[in-house]
Amino acid sequence: MSQLLRVQNFTVSSDGFGAGEGQSLEKPFGHADPGNMFAWAIATDHPPINRSEPGGSRGLDDYITRDYARNIGAEIMGRNKFGPQRGPWQDHEWQGWWGDEPPFHTPVFVMTHHKRPSFTLSDTTFHFVDGDPAAVLAQAKEAAQGQDVRLGGGATIIRQFLKADLVDTLHVAVVPTKLGSGARLWESPDELLDRFHQDVVPSPSGVTHHLFWRK
Amino acid sequence: MSQLLRVQNFTVSSDGFGAGEGQSLEKPFGHADPGNMFAWAIATDHPPINRSEPGGSRGLDDYITRDYARNIGAEIMGRNKFGPQRGPWQDHEWQGWWGDEPPFHTPVFVMTHHKRPSFTLSDTTFHFVDGDPAAVLAQAKEAAQGQDVRLGGGATIIRQFLKADLVDTLHVAVVPTKLGSGARLWESPDELLDRFHQDVVPSPSGVTHHLFWRK
Repeated sequence: MSQLLRVQNFTVSSDGFGAGEGQSLEKPFGHADPGNMFAWAIATDHPPINRSEPGGSRGLDDYITRDYARNIGAEIMGRNKFGPQRGPWQDHEWQGWWGDEPPFHTPVFVMTHHKRPSFTLSDTTFHFVDGDPAAVLAQAKEAAQGQDVRLGGGATIIRQFLKADLVDTLHVAVVPTKLGSGARLWESPDELLDRFHQDVVPSPSGVTHHLFWRK
Repeated sequence: MSQLLRVQNFTVSSDGFGAGEGQSLEKPFGHADPGNMFAWAIATDHPPINRSEPGGSRGLDDYITRDYARNIGAEIMGRNKFGPQRGPWQDHEWQGWWGDEPPFHTPVFVMTHHKRPSFTLSDTTFHFVDGDPAAVLAQAKEAAQGQDVRLGGGATIIRQFLKADLVDTLHVAVVPTKLGSGARLWESPDELLDRFHQDVVPSPSGVTHHLFWRK
């Protein structure tokens, strides 16, 4: 089986935004409340972050979250997912939002026009790469050693890879909250239906899972 | 995390039967049509059987089917899942329904009062064990080496393990077809609600997934 590029657990507001406006060190999601956006995932037994408390739900949402790392060998993310800085890197001591144990456990390719040395935290190595989506994907696939590559977001990067027709599957969780502005993934999920099959699955938790795979 | 006992992809009719009446070598599911019962799983990209053609859907049903083997280190099945024979084994040459490449890829513990030597086909080894559910589960957990154990069915075995309160999670797919008689899993899924949380998830394919996990 060929290596896929997969979007997993990408969460957007009901009006299509993956993050709010005004990203900062204190507010990674700008005016969006991550506690609200990601409550559906945090409540599961397999949240895609490190969590101290064990336990959690094992229903539909957990099927979704436990697929996050399955057969993933690398991640690609945009610079704004890595951090709020813009322009040349001023401070190499800041190493992302995730502390000493990032939840990726694979090589991560951060797309940026500004060079920065790779570094490793626990079992995650961050590489900072310039290039078009196809070139970055080729690097990530090589690093993934036969496994799939996760496209981690944010919304802007996902749109770039969709435009280049490089995405094979997408899972987007739509929360029943409007943001009004921010980083937009889509005006409507219908935009993807020319190229993708879609399942729309309402979850008992209140989110609606949109599952897309290539026609 | 402790080892779980999981029911995965167990498919029943809308009136609660996992198989029809009149099981035979020619009709593993008796008067039930397996092509109808399992169409939802066969159509996915990760069906829990060996399939020659690649491809398949990657929506909700595929999230379910690709969970079938995740972190599974052993299976327990009833004798009627292994074969239609009753009483002492007459023919050791018959080695189950699955041909030279059984889809289990782990040790499999077949519950029977009638002794039979273990044998291996490809990466699946079948053991024939007598004992109560707790004793068989202990054997299977040891063989699973820290991974979970799948309870493969049929309905009678699942009911036995439920009665002994040994099941941790269940996924049951309900197909919109009545069988009228056969091996019954339940009169109603509500029977499990005293001990389990439940998500009920209708799939675009027409089946309804019932996901249970311990309270």
